[in-house]
This record gives sequence, C-alpha cells and structure tokens, in this order.
Amino acid sequence: MIDPLERWRRYGEKPDYAGLLTFGSLPYTQDPAELEGVDVAIVGAPTDDLVSDRPGARFGPRAIRAASCPPGPHLEAKVDAMAELRMVDYGDAPVVPADAARTHEAIERTVGEVVSAGAIPLVLGGDHSIAEPDIRACAARHGPLGLVHFDTHTDTGTEVFGVEVSHGTPMYRLVEQGHIDPKRYVQIGLRGYWPGPKEFAWQEEHGITSFFMHDVREHGIREVIERTLGLVGAGPTYVTVDVDVLDPAFAPGTGTPEPGGMTSGDLLWACRTVAESLELVGAEVVEVIPTAPGSADITALVADRIVRELLTGIALRRTANPVRRA
Amino acid sequence: MIDPLERWRRYGEKPDYAGLLTFGSLPYTQDPAELEGVDVAIVGAPTDDLVSDRPGARFGPRAIRAASCPPGPHLEAKVDAMAELRMVDYGDAPVVPADAARTHEAIERTVGEVVSAGAIPLVLGGDHSIAEPDIRACAARHGPLGLVHFDTHTDTGTEVFGVEVSHGTPMYRLVEQGHIDPKRYVQIGLRGYWPGPKEFAWQEEHGITSFFMHDVREHGIREVIERTLGLVGAGPTYVTVDVDVLDPAFAPGTGTPEPGGMTSGDLLWACRTVAESLELVGAEVVEVIPTAPGSADITALVADRIVRELLTGIALRRTANPVRRA
Amino acid sequence: MIDPLERWRRYGEKPDYAGLLTFGSLPYTQDPAELEGVDVAIVGAPTDDLVSDRPGARFGPRAIRAASCPPGPHLEAKVDAMAELRMVDYGDAPVVPADAARTHEAIERTVGEVVSAGAIPLVLGGDHSIAEPDIRACAARHGPLGLVHFDTHTDTGTEVFGVEVSHGTPMYRLVEQGHIDPKRYVQIGLRGYWPGPKEFAWQEEHGITSFFMHDVREHGIREVIERTLGLVGAGPTYVTVDVDVLDPAFAPGTGTPEPGGMTSGDLLWACRTVAESLELVGAEVVEVIPTAPGSADITALVADRIVRELLTGIALRRTANPVRRA
Amino acid sequence: MIDPLERWRRYGEKPDYAGLLTFGSLPYTQDPAELEGVDVAIVGAPTDDLVSDRPGARFGPRAIRAASCPPGPHLEAKVDAMAELRMVDYGDAPVVPADAARTHEAIERTVGEVVSAGAIPLVLGGDHSIAEPDIRACAARHGPLGLVHFDTHTDTGTEVFGVEVSHGTPMYRLVEQGHIDPKRYVQIGLRGYWPGPKEFAWQEEHGITSFFMHDVREHGIREVIERTLGLVGAGPTYVTVDVDVLDPAFAPGTGTPEPGGMTSGDLLWACRTVAESLELVGAEVVEVIPTAPGSADITALVADRIVRELLTGIALRRTANPVRRA
Amino acid sequence: MIDPLERWRRYGEKPDYAGLLTFGSLPYTQDPAELEGVDVAIVGAPTDDLVSDRPGARFGPRAIRAASCPPGPHLEAKVDAMAELRMVDYGDAPVVPADAARTHEAIERTVGEVVSAGAIPLVLGGDHSIAEPDIRACAARHGPLGLVHFDTHTDTGTEVFGVEVSHGTPMYRLVEQGHIDPKRYVQIGLRGYWPGPKEFAWQEEHGITSFFMHDVREHGIREVIERTLGLVGAGPTYVTVDVDVLDPAFAPGTGTPEPGGMTSGDLLWACRTVAESLELVGAEVVEVIPTAPGSADITALVADRIVRELLTGIALRRTANPVRRA
Amino acid sequence: MIDPLERWRRYGEKPDYAGLLTFGSLPYTQDPAELEGVDVAIVGAPTDDLVSDRPGARFGPRAIRAASCPPGPHLEAKVDAMAELRMVDYGDAPVVPADAARTHEAIERTVGEVVSAGAIPLVLGGDHSIAEPDIRACAARHGPLGLVHFDTHTDTGTEVFGVEVSHGTPMYRLVEQGHIDPKRYVQIGLRGYWPGPKEFAWQEEHGITSFFMHDVREHGIREVIERTLGLVGAGPTYVTVDVDVLDPAFAPGTGTPEPGGMTSGDLLWACRTVAESLELVGAEVVEVIPTAPGSADITALVADRIVRELLTGIALRRTANPVRRA
Repeated sequence: MIDPLERWRRYGEKPDYAGLLTFGSLPYTQDPAELEGVDVAIVGAPTDDLVSDRPGARFGPRAIRAASCPPGPHLEAKVDAMAELRMVDYGDAPVVPADAARTHEAIERTVGEVVSAGAIPLVLGGDHSIAEPDIRACAARHGPLGLVHFDTHTDTGTEVFGVEVSHGTPMYRLVEQGHIDPKRYVQIGLRGYWPGPKEFAWQEEHGITSFFMHDVREHGIREVIERTLGLVGAGPTYVTVDVDVLDPAFAPGTGTPEPGGMTSGDLLWACRTVAESLELVGAEVVEVIPTAPGSADITALVADRIVRELLTGIALRRTANPVRRA
Repeated sequence: MIDPLERWRRYGEKPDYAGLLTFGSLPYTQDPAELEGVDVAIVGAPTDDLVSDRPGARFGPRAIRAASCPPGPHLEAKVDAMAELRMVDYGDAPVVPADAARTHEAIERTVGEVVSAGAIPLVLGGDHSIAEPDIRACAARHGPLGLVHFDTHTDTGTEVFGVEVSHGTPMYRLVEQGHIDPKRYVQIGLRGYWPGPKEFAWQEEHGITSFFMHDVREHGIREVIERTLGLVGAGPTYVTVDVDVLDPAFAPGTGTPEPGGMTSGDLLWACRTVAESLELVGAEVVEVIPTAPGSADITALVADRIVRELLTGIALRRTANPVRRA
Repeated sequence: MIDPLERWRRYGEKPDYAGLLTFGSLPYTQDPAELEGVDVAIVGAPTDDLVSDRPGARFGPRAIRAASCPPGPHLEAKVDAMAELRMVDYGDAPVVPADAARTHEAIERTVGEVVSAGAIPLVLGGDHSIAEPDIRACAARHGPLGLVHFDTHTDTGTEVFGVEVSHGTPMYRLVEQGHIDPKRYVQIGLRGYWPGPKEFAWQEEHGITSFFMHDVREHGIREVIERTLGLVGAGPTYVTVDVDVLDPAFAPGTGTPEPGGMTSGDLLWACRTVAESLELVGAEVVEVIPTAPGSADITALVADRIVRELLTGIALRRTANPVRRA
Repeated sequence: MIDPLERWRRYGEKPDYAGLLTFGSLPYTQDPAELEGVDVAIVGAPTDDLVSDRPGARFGPRAIRAASCPPGPHLEAKVDAMAELRMVDYGDAPVVPADAARTHEAIERTVGEVVSAGAIPLVLGGDHSIAEPDIRACAARHGPLGLVHFDTHTDTGTEVFGVEVSHGTPMYRLVEQGHIDPKRYVQIGLRGYWPGPKEFAWQEEHGITSFFMHDVREHGIREVIERTLGLVGAGPTYVTVDVDVLDPAFAPGTGTPEPGGMTSGDLLWACRTVAESLELVGAEVVEVIPTAPGSADITALVADRIVRELLTGIALRRTANPVRRA
Repeated sequence: MIDPLERWRRYGEKPDYAGLLTFGSLPYTQDPAELEGVDVAIVGAPTDDLVSDRPGARFGPRAIRAASCPPGPHLEAKVDAMAELRMVDYGDAPVVPADAARTHEAIERTVGEVVSAGAIPLVLGGDHSIAEPDIRACAARHGPLGLVHFDTHTDTGTEVFGVEVSHGTPMYRLVEQGHIDPKRYVQIGLRGYWPGPKEFAWQEEHGITSFFMHDVREHGIREVIERTLGLVGAGPTYVTVDVDVLDPAFAPGTGTPEPGGMTSGDLLWACRTVAESLELVGAEVVEVIPTAPGSADITALVADRIVRELLTGIALRRTANPVRRA
Repeated sequence: MIDPLERWRRYGEKPDYAGLLTFGSLPYTQDPAELEGVDVAIVGAPTDDLVSDRPGARFGPRAIRAASCPPGPHLEAKVDAMAELRMVDYGDAPVVPADAARTHEAIERTVGEVVSAGAIPLVLGGDHSIAEPDIRACAARHGPLGLVHFDTHTDTGTEVFGVEVSHGTPMYRLVEQGHIDPKRYVQIGLRGYWPGPKEFAWQEEHGITSFFMHDVREHGIREVIERTLGLVGAGPTYVTVDVDVLDPAFAPGTGTPEPGGMTSGDLLWACRTVAESLELVGAEVVEVIPTAPGSADITALVADRIVRELLTGIALRRTANPVRRA
C-alpha cells in the first residue's frame, strides 16, 4: 500500500494537483490481501465500449480522481467520512479495450475481491453497462439486492440497436438474472424519450417503482426519497448513479444528456440520505465524460461529490450504529 | 423525400451520429409539393447578420439537428409526438451571408411555403431578427397572431445602434405592422438592463403583458403560464423562444446571455403546456450559438428539447381534439 | 479621464466588444485627483499568487470588464444605477507577479485612494486573499466593519499549507486585526469539506454567524438575508462575494468549485438587497477564472452582474435617502 | 437524389453552414440505382468501436462534411475536380454501435454498392479498422490491390490487447487474406513506439516497404513519393490516410497522435500526386476526432482537404487520359 | 493620453494581464490632437458584418491587444521598435454592428485621422473588408499604393454571394477605384479553391502578381520576398496580412482557414523584411477570431507578432535612414 | 514499489487511460531505498508560483503522465529505452502551494535522493524556476555542469519584476553559484523580445553560447546541434527543455508562447542526439500548461515525447558503451 500523503508529512498538507493520483488522496493498493479490515474500497472501471451514443466514459475514473478533494469534515453533516472509515483506492479493473466480455469479467473479478474482503465497493465508471458485473459481484455475496437508481433512463431495454449487453440493458438483465429484487428497485429522475411502452410494461409487471422528474419537481426530493426508503426497506441495497440524472447544466460531460434534470443540491442530499438510511453493500457513479482538463471538469467534480456524499451517509450510519462494525 | 432511417431498416435503429443530418432523423425534403398532408415542418434559418453583440447563431440550425434525438415517447407526457404527427425536415431557407434583406425574404418565402401547405412551421434560428419573416409568413395566412414570447429582452426597440431591422426590434415592427395582436402578446422571463422606459411605455400603451423573472421566481412558472394562457386565449398563436431566457448555466451558447434566468425544467414544461393549450400556428427557437462539437453542445441540446416539447404539446392537443385533423 | 463612449457619440451607441475596455464602458482614470466627487470606483486586483489549488484569477478583472454590459435600467428594480451614481473605472492596482507582499501593498494603496476620496471601492479579484488589503483600506477610514460574506468556505484558517497569508485565511486575520467586527460578520452559502472543527470553534468563540447551503435550501434565500440584515444592522459594512458560492453550473470558472451551491437568481437578488439595506462602504467579487474567450465566459458574466446588483442596491438606497449625498 | 444547392439557385451561392449537410455540397443519394454513371462517391463510416485508446472517430464523417468546402478550382492544380467528375455523397454506411461485426458488414456492403456501380469510393472514417471492409469491397472487384498507406503506425499487428479485429490490425489481415499485394504496399510517415520487431519481421518477409518520418525529413516528400510510385507501379491501387500521420500541430483531433509528423503541405501534395499518378480504385481518410464545433475543427478540415486533393489528382489523371472514361 | 505603465513605475514592470488594455502597453489616446509627432498609431477595427463564413473577427482587436507583449528588444533584429518609434494606441474605430456602411465610414475616418497627422496606421481587424476603408484613407494622402498582400485568397471578387462590399472583394474594388497600383500589387500564399478563372483573368489583365503556396514551398520565402520587393519597388506601399495565409496549425482562429499554408517563422520574417525594405505608409492584420481566453489564444498571439515584426522593420529602416525622419 | 501493469498481466496489455497513473506505466515508488540499481527516475515538480505571466504549469506533471505512452521500441532509433534502462516513476516532490522557498527545498531534496542513488533524474515541470533546485541537486554530486538549454528565452535575468528567484532567472543564478560552467552552456531557439542588452552582455562576458531561431532556420538543426556538441564536449551535462522553444502550433499550452519557434520534429531529434552524444546526469522538461483533458493535450504529449527521446538517447549511448554500466 502506498500513501500519497506520506512525502508531504514533513512539509504539511498535500495539494490536490500533486502526488500520486488516487481518489481523495487515499492509500493505493492493488493487492487483495491488503483489503483486510477495509470498510470501503474505490474501484475504477474505465470502459465505454457498450455505449450507443457519445463515448468517453473510459476517461471517467481518472478524471473523478483528479477532481476529488482530500479527506475533511462534511461541513453540513459534521462528519469526516474518510477519517471514520477505513478506506483504500483499489485501482482500476484490468479492462481490455474493444473486448467488452473480458472487460466485464475483469470488473466483476475486481469488484468481487472487494466484496469478498467484506468491504463496500464504490465503483467509478465507465458506462452504465458496468452495473451488470458490479451488481453481480455484490449479489453473489449478499443475495438479491434492493436498488436505488438515479438516472434519466431506465436502462431496462432487452437490447439497444440489437445489442443485448449494452449500457441500456443492465437493469433488465440483472432483474431477469435474479440479482436485483424488483420489488425493492426504485428509479428516480426519469425523463426524455427512451425507453417505450414495452419496457415500462415489463417494469410494471415486475413491480419496479419509477419516480419521474415531474415527481421530483412537484413533490420535492425529500418526499421522493422518503417514499424510496419505504419501498426499498431493509436488506442489502445497491445505489447506482448515472450522472445524466442531473440537468446538463450541472453535468454537461456525459454521453446522453437530457435537459430538465435534477440539481446537484438535490442529488447530493439524496445520495447521502439513502446511504445513511439503507443497508448499502455497494454503489457506482457512471457515465462521466470529462471535457475540461484535470480538476476543472465540473462533471467529474460532481461525480466525486456524489461518492463523497455516499461515504458520508455510510459514516453517519456507522456512527449511529457503532455495534455494526464490531 | 429522403428517409434517413431507411438504410438502417435492415440492421436495426439508427444512431444519432450517423446518417443524413435531419432534425430527429425526420425525412428530408426541399420540395413544396411534398409538404402535402404534413402537420409540422422543421425549417432552418441560419443567419446572424443582424446581431448587436456575439455572432454565431448562423451555426444554430445544424447544431440543433446534430443534438436532436430520434422519435420516441415523451416519458412524462406519454405520447410520441413524432409518431402522432406527420412531419418533415424542410431544410434551411436559402440565406445569403451579409445580405440581411435577401435573407429575410428567403426565410419568409420558405416559411410561407410551409404555411401555405397547411402545416405548422417550427423554425430553428438564427438570431431573433428572423421572427419578423417567420411571423409575417404565418400572419399572412392566419391574420394577427397571439404571441407567447420567452426571452430576457423584449426585442421591442425601434432601433438598435441606429439599425431598424435588428435582432432587438422584431416585436416592435410586427406589432406596428399589425401581424401581432398586442393584447394577445405575453412576454415571459424579462430581466437585465435593456430596453428602457421608452420601450416599456410603448408596450404599456399597446397592452402588451410582461412577466419578469421575479414573477417566475416568486409565483412559480405554473401561475405565470396559467395567466399567460388566459391573456392569449383563443385564436391563432405563435410561440417564440429565445434561449437566452434560460440562465447561462442552462444555455451558455447564446449571444447575449443574462444570469438569473429560467431553469430548463421550467421552460420545457412551459413550452409543452403552451403548445397543448393554445392554437399554435407556428413557432421558433432562436439565438443558439454552439460552442462544443456536435451532440456535446448543451445549448443546442436544450433548443432541440424545446422544439420537442412544443411538438409534444401539439400532439397532445390533437389527440385530445381528434376532429381537428379531419 | 477618458470616456470610451466619446468616439461613438457621433455614430450612436457603443457595442460592448469595441472601444477601450473598462467596466460597463465607464470613463477611465488612474489619477487620484479625478476621484473627487465620485460615488463608486471600480478597482481591479489581478493576482492569484496565494491560491492553494487552481490559479488563473489574475485574469479575472479583465474578463469581468469584457463581460460587462453598458449602463442601462435594471428591468426589475427600475433604476439605472450607472446613471444615478457618479462612477469611474479606476483601473488595476499595480500588482507584482510572484511577490504577494508588494502586490497586497499595491492593492491596499489603490483601494485606499478610492476610500480617501470618499468613494465606495468595488474591487474585481483576484483570489480571495485580496480581502485583506481591500478591507483594511476601508476599515482604515470607517473603523471595524460589518461583513456579509458569500462563499463556499469560511476563509478563516490560521494557515493553509503552512502559509499564513493565503486565500484561505483573510477573514481570520482581519478579525484578529480588528478590522472586522465578528458580531456583525455573517457567512452565507457554506458547504463542502473545509475548514474543520478548530476554525469553527474559533468562529463561534467570536460570535460569527454561518448560514450553510442547507439553510438556503430549506429556509429560502429571503429568510437567510432577512436574518443577515438583522445581524449586521447599522454601521459601515463590506460585502465580499467569492463566486464559488454559486453552484459550478452557474460559475464553472473558479479555483475551488463546490457542487450543491447557490443559483445565480438567488445570489443576484441577495446582493442587491444587502446593498440596498445596509450601509455599504466597499465590496469585492473574487475568484473568477475565465475559461472562455471574451464575453462568452459565463463566470465573468455573473461576476459582472453581481457588481451590477450591488450598484443597483446602492442606487436604490441613495434614491430612497437622497439627503445622504448632499 | 437531392441537390443541396437547388434552393439557393434563385438567390446565388450556398454558404457552407447552411443547407443539407453533404460533402462539398454534393447531391445526396442513398439509392444504389442512382450511382449509375457516377465517377466518385463519398461514403461515411462513423464507427470507433475497435480503438485501443481515445474514441470519437464516430463523429468524423459528419465533422468532415461540416468542414468541407464547395466545388471550386484548385488554385494550384488549375482544375475543379468536383466539376470534372460526376460525384455524389452516398451517405453513411448503416453502422451499429457496440457491434463491430455488423458494422463492418454494413460498411463492406455499402462500399461494395459503390464499387459495383463502377465508381470510386472515398470513405470518411471512422477508426482505421474500416480499412478491412473498405479494401475488401474494392479487392472483390479489382483483385489484390497496391496500397499507399500514410500513417504513424503500420497497423499490421496480429492483435491489439488480444483483439484480432482492431484499428491496429487491418493491414496484417488484408495481406493475409490476399486483398493487398505486399510487394505493391508502401507505408509512409512511420514513427513512434509501435509496433515491434515481430511485426516488422513479418513485413520484411512479405516485401512491404516502409518510409519513416526521418526518410521524409531527410530526403523530402518528393523523393519519398517518387520511390513510392515506382514501387506500387501499374495496377489497381488503394490509398489510406490516417490523419495521425500529420504532426499533432496539424491534426490534434485524432486518437493516437504522435509528435514529429508530417506537415499538411507535404501530405496534401503527396495525396494529389499519388492519385494523379496511380490507378486509384478507392481511398479512405480515417481517425478524425472532432474537438471544435462545426467548421472550426482543424482536423476535420485537413481531412476534407486530403479528400479534395485525392479528387483533384483523379481529375487531373482523367483529364490527361480522357480515353479512360469512355 | 493615458500611460498604462504609469502606476507600475513605483513598483517595477507591468505584467501583461494587468492594467489598461492597450497594444503592447502603449499610451492610449482617442484625441486626434495627440497624434502630433507620432510615428505609428495602432487602430482597431472590430467588425465582421461582411463575412461569408465564420464570424467572430469583431473580437480580434481586443484579443490581439490581450496577447500583445510589452516593449522590448527584438532578439534577432537587435532593435526595440517600440522604443525607437513614437507610438500610441489610438483605440478602435466607432464601428456600428449590423451597419457595414457606417462602420466602414467610421474606420475610414479614424484611420484618416492617423494618416492626416503624418503617422503610419497599423490596423487590427476585423474581417478583410476593412482593407477598403483602410487603404482608401492611406491612398487619399499618398496616392495609389503598392500592395503586399499575404493571404490564402485573392479577395478580388466582384461580388461574394451577390454582395459587392464583402471580405472577398476589397482588392478588386480598390484597384478599380485607383487606390492600388496593380503593377505594384503582389499576392503571397495563395492556395485552396477560390476564386476562379474570371478573377484570375482580371488580375492578369491588370498586371497583378501572385505567388502561390507552391512557390513558397519550392523556392523558399526568401526568393519570393526578394522578387516581391523588386516588383513593388519604390513608392508608398501598404501591407495587408490575412492570418489565414498561415497554416491552420499556426492560426486556427480564423474564418476561412485553409490547410497547406505558411509557417509563422516564414511569415514573421517576411513581414519584417517587407517593412524594412519598402516605404510603408500603412498596414493591417485581419481575420483573427479568438477561440481561447485572453493571452492563451495562439492566433491573436501570432497576429500581435506580425504587427511587432512590421514595427521592427519600420524601426530598422528608420535607423538606417535617420535623415528620413527630419 | 507498485507496478501498474501487474493486474493486466492475466488479461494482456494495459491501455494508457486505465490503471495507476505513472509515467509510461512505470513502477511507482516514493521510497529512496528502492532507487537502488535504478538508471533513470522520473520526478514531478508541480509548481508555478514563480511565473510572471500565465500560471498552470502546476498541472504539468500529471498531464505529461496522462499523455505518456507505454514502453515500446523507438521505431526510428530501433531501441526500447524503457526496456534497456532500469526505471521508476519516483512521484512528485512535496511542493507547497504559495511557498516557493519550501517548494524549491522539497524539489532539491527529492531530486537529490535520485542523484544520490546514482540514477539520472528526469524532472517534469512545473515552471522553469525549478531548474535551480534540479541542477543544484545534480551539481552537488557531479560538480559544475555543462548545460544544453532549449528555450525561447535565456532565463538569465537578475530579476523579473523585481523578484530574484523567478522562472526568468535560474540560469543567471546557477552560473553565479558555480553550478553551471558557462563555457559549456549552450542556448538553442532564442527569439522574441526578452531579455535585453544587459543580460546578453553578461552572457557574453561569461562565454555562454546562444543559437537563435534564425540560426536553426538558416543552418538547420543538425549543424546547430553539431556545434552544440562540440561546445559542451565531455563532462557531466544537464539538458533543460522549456516547451516554449517550440512554435505555439506545436506547444500551445505554455505560459509565454512565442511564434516562430522550432518544429517538434527538429526538437525531438535534437533531444535524442544530445542525450546520445553527451554525458547526461539529469534533465527536465518545463512550462507545460495543459489545456485539453487527459491524453488529448498536445503540449503534454510532446513533452512526454521529449522525455522519451532523452531516454532513447541515454539507452543508445549505454548500448554503444556497455562497459559504462558495470
């Protein structure tokens, strides 16, 4: 394990733009043995071979790390999650360009190593197709999962352009494979022009719940999240955040942006609350396509903060339920 | 007529970045004879010779088409406007660079061909000076029009920098020419520092109604639109949307951006509602200056979605009043 | 004094992109003698030597001037501040690159010249470290000041990376130096991950009031400002606006952006109201890093409008209290 | 067939930014029957699923068309190729995102339609993997082809990251499949750090000729092209241009740029000369990743001019050998 | 007159990004009386109303000033032109947006004031249509001028898109008006696809000389310039530089870029040599469209250096012919 | 030590955009003990506190690493330097923002650790002020060094804006401190407008040799380098490359770009030749300011290739002199 902060100890703090590039300046390891005792591990999944429109999410994990801020107390939640939790940056899954099958296998194996060590994986995408290996790796240990899914699109197609494994199909496949419990699956932020009646009929049939953007605008994010918490309830839960759930003003760097979306204020609060209230066993932030250099990219930045709010929620929950750790 | 989807029929769907560039992958024609039976035709007006600040709206129509998404059901309104309506992309008016007079004549003629065929023109600008030929072509058939005008500025100057035909004067000229009924003319989203008392006095004199951004912030978009619908009432109506009505966060690519503007959530809902509630005979979206390549431009993207919401509103109205088509 | 509008008088108005670059096309002077009788003077402080993350605020003043709009009536407040107030652009302080001490001395001297002439300085930053010379120059004449501070961060560190004069420490230093009255010091918009308990303990000890972003989201900007006005009360007051108080969607060009921030609609209203309601003796807008050319930069644009709202508030107050000027 | 110039005939010329987007404002058809009598047809191949580094070449064909200039005389060669040759824009092959196999089949079929009609296909990429279907379609009619290959890389890997059909392997595969005659295959512009000894041993074994960038710098482009013409000699010949053969200064928008490359002056001259001197049966320009909006993209622009120089060479050859056409 | 360096005198040098924005930190005046005794005056002509493709050159003058460097010795020519010559920045001509006629009148008047004072005007464009008022103002005093014209295009159209006063017609008009002596008119750098035989026939008829890019590549810039000097010979001479004469690699920010152009090394040397060797009475640099913020724009930068080389040439000539000034 | 390639071993090669970010995918260590037996170590120096114009070079090291390519044979030199040499990425020196003194101390210490271990440091800047600690650390072991200095500017000022330790003064200081032997000090690529006669007089006095850009253009890079090798001769030598020696076309992302510079072809060849021919004890590449995200930045890319050519030269020299290693 290598600690990016080490060399700065004799001088003071480390600026974000210097030193080894890890998420939040976390220690880095790629050795499964070093996951022992870790609460949360960051994993990158830099792949976009299965997109149907703009590519570039392969650059997401590195951009999110570059935009990430160092450990520090959450000013509003009054907890420093990265101090509370034992964390590492576990590096990227060994993706293979232009070979989606081997890439997914590599992601599933790498996330699986984290899960096997008893830690929560927080995966940085990558396109949304990675939900399939990510969630499969978590469900392999925890059984069928509840799912809180922030997104413009349902991603429950049976195929996209005739392709079955796609960034538009993972949720269909995971439900069909039994890894997601559709009764405990809630979608938040839907809008736009895809998918169609067939997919929504399938969703209804399985008992999946959808909150559209007009639900958020009319009832407020608090009520939507409250109802979500009730629907998902107890049991192992996964959170997946496609940054295109945000309005393009807040996240212009994504593959299929859709105007009329959430504000970052609402989304960040929602992520923290979900993570604090439910039994999180894994999470991912996907579809970040950086368009500005380094830490100037506002989409990578908000993706980093989404992760940080999830971490903050996890830390708040652990603080409130200290026995859980023992 | 050429159908961009044709070649893909044997393979599946067409990705947005491939094939002939038309709005929403619509069939393309530039032949007036093929407008027969068409409900709505898209027309581009790529010109910006009459702006007083940043040029570049001449690139708007192509960028909006590049950002446009294929036909599909509006997830929240539950209707696929492009399936309900018979539509074509009627191409661009034959503009002439550095010759605003001939450009306006060409726009008026091209929009007029659509109107003559009994179809609704949806015009992609271009700077806001195109409102003059656009609305004149519609009023020539339908008589003085009601006008719903989303904008930061009133565009009711008598001149801008001493120039009478300008992107700051069309509404003054159209009212004076009798093509707009000032009693049925409502402005929404005003703010900033132009125009001055003289223009507002003229507006008041003619009975034009203005909703400022503080009206939207304080009373909410729903109340503002409700009052707008009441003011405009029955009769042929035109909708003009200057994308600078949006806050620059939502539409950075425009010629005279003004902070403190509308959110895209509010504007999209408002456009759909207006189109559903009033008797639309034409509409335009103007002042898009693309700043990012292809489909990555968020201003062109929101402009596309404004058009899509207008179409959705038209389709909802037709579905509710099926007799109208016969 | 040179008037950028002069040459245009025989032709009409001056477009923003032409002529001498001054704030709002104001007359330019760098001669203290010409400050006589001036109400408000714009001063640039183009420096960023003391930042801890992204530099570039040295380009802020020029970009804000390029984004600035000409005098004109505030459409919503119904006053043309730049016509009401006698104003000049007093140019930039003679900063010295890579020599923060001499730069601060130059800023303090230049702002001091404005203050000595009885005018209100409106300073365009520059990084937030300029608050120290800016406020010191104002307090030298007016005594300890009330402070309304819009920001993501408190900037009350004792040091940042071991550096005592930094963009993260001015408020600590100014309170300790006696130039800010902590009882009349209100922070608005706090969020993110810095600073920590030590700094907040110091703040509490001195009676500084903090409104976090959740306060703004939950209670609304109106209530937050109302409480602020009550806390600051009568007496000479300074306003400092770090543009990172805005969400990165509204102000992407800044050094330490933090998602979940204010909207420009809220901030602009708040600035005008504060300036109208309190006894302003100086103000500054800081941390603008332009990322787009000229007037296309939306962060510089909103910074310009922040200044314009402050001016509008000052003008409204003077109009309401005409005796003050005599 | 639709002629983008038609609507402008009554007004004058058509500006590049207006009207139907086709290459050089050429008539558009997607009907094989209309290829009858055509000399050259433009085909787009918007795909990048097989890249190993930066994606985005799927946006290449549209960007090249947007950057393309209208017909006109080549000022230096004194011929207007687009007037001399009967040409159409045959649109894009019906690519399928995330399905490289079906995409290649679609490209081969579409290019094959052009070849079958007796026309020369000029293909706009897309990543360099399209060379495989492109050249296969040409060789199907003309037998094994000579190849002039401008590139940084040899693209003769047996696999890239374990993937056999890749943008790094087409030339290996085409030689092995018998579609390229290795004795008539010349590479120009090689440099950088890929491939290795194994690939070069294979090349030598088959008699492929390589000119490195030091050959171009030391002997000049004229001598290199003269030797190329001698090596390729008579017989059907294909030209493939990977824009990364240019120095990144001249073509920054590409997937694997390599400093130390050719100037556009040299490359444009070379393309024209090769096309004039050899018996061209097809050509392609690949690996364009647009990074600036519309016609402002300099990489798409130089790609357009590469095509134009090839066309100019073809026209010069036909003019000099008029019998050939009969 | 205002000296941007004044305030810095007590602190040291002035950094380029601070202080009043003038060309090379020159003193600023807009008073004709202060032109007395001035050798060279900078004039901005921020207009682009007459372009046929990309607009944006209205932002050129300000961007060139922002990119300009302070006075200093030319390292290779060993002279500090700005110390040798008495110079001012005379500001921008009072252009009027969307009114090309009044804009040209304003430019001709402003440049005329410089000429009348006996100074050499160096005009910063603006699109190339400004050559007409610029040269007319110079010829009004000096009689028909020799012309050295660096450009991709001849700009000798009789009309462009039917428009007679255009950025593609000034040289035709000026020759026809008798302000340019066609025998002393040399074009350098021609290439691309415009204009056609008609224009070249007219040129030949009038004895205009054209050097194409192949002349520069084959014979070298030194021989081309030597022949140019011989052709232009003695007598008052004007130099016009359209930055699109450079390859887009060196000047991407221009309206009609054309690959295969000059290097900045060649152009800079050529400009200095021409200015040193001929009797310059005026010059202009046109068609700069800034695409990057402030001093980061490489096209504005090279435009600044073109002006600096012209100044250096003028200074070298004056130093060598000191009597001339008396 | 951590090997970024490790996890990919079971899958194949590692794509550049994935995995731990190190230079050329080298193993990473920050432990001096692991430098044992290393030939060359990469060190980052992410600082720009001492610049006089555009900042941003603090982002250089990370951008160069992101642009770096994996080990592989130099196609033209026929050697794989990174296979021949034992190398590590030694990480960044622990810089302190806004504290240049501690930053320089940290750089000198970190580079010193490499030198002490007997390895050659290759330093990635950072602004050019880092030459002072870099060279001091090398000279501490090897005595006064010969210096090959590629740059637009001499960087031999006694002060810049009154600041003595600056990016414009390191060479003056190092000569005066005795760490550079001025007789063995050669500058290549000078041009532009700084410094002046005083600095050149000092240079002449000390026997420093300057090659200007006109020397490169007139005599060719080969002759200039041949003469350089003769002047520097035997003995320990350092190479410093300021990327602004390149024309802005080739390296737009730098702080003080100057048109008329070197091509990347010339510079890359020169770096390799110098490293092969002289006794290199250290080198640095400075003043890279990334302006495009990740691997799309062409300035960081050419900086990476400069390092690679230096490594290739070192490897060629070692291969030719195998005894040297023993």
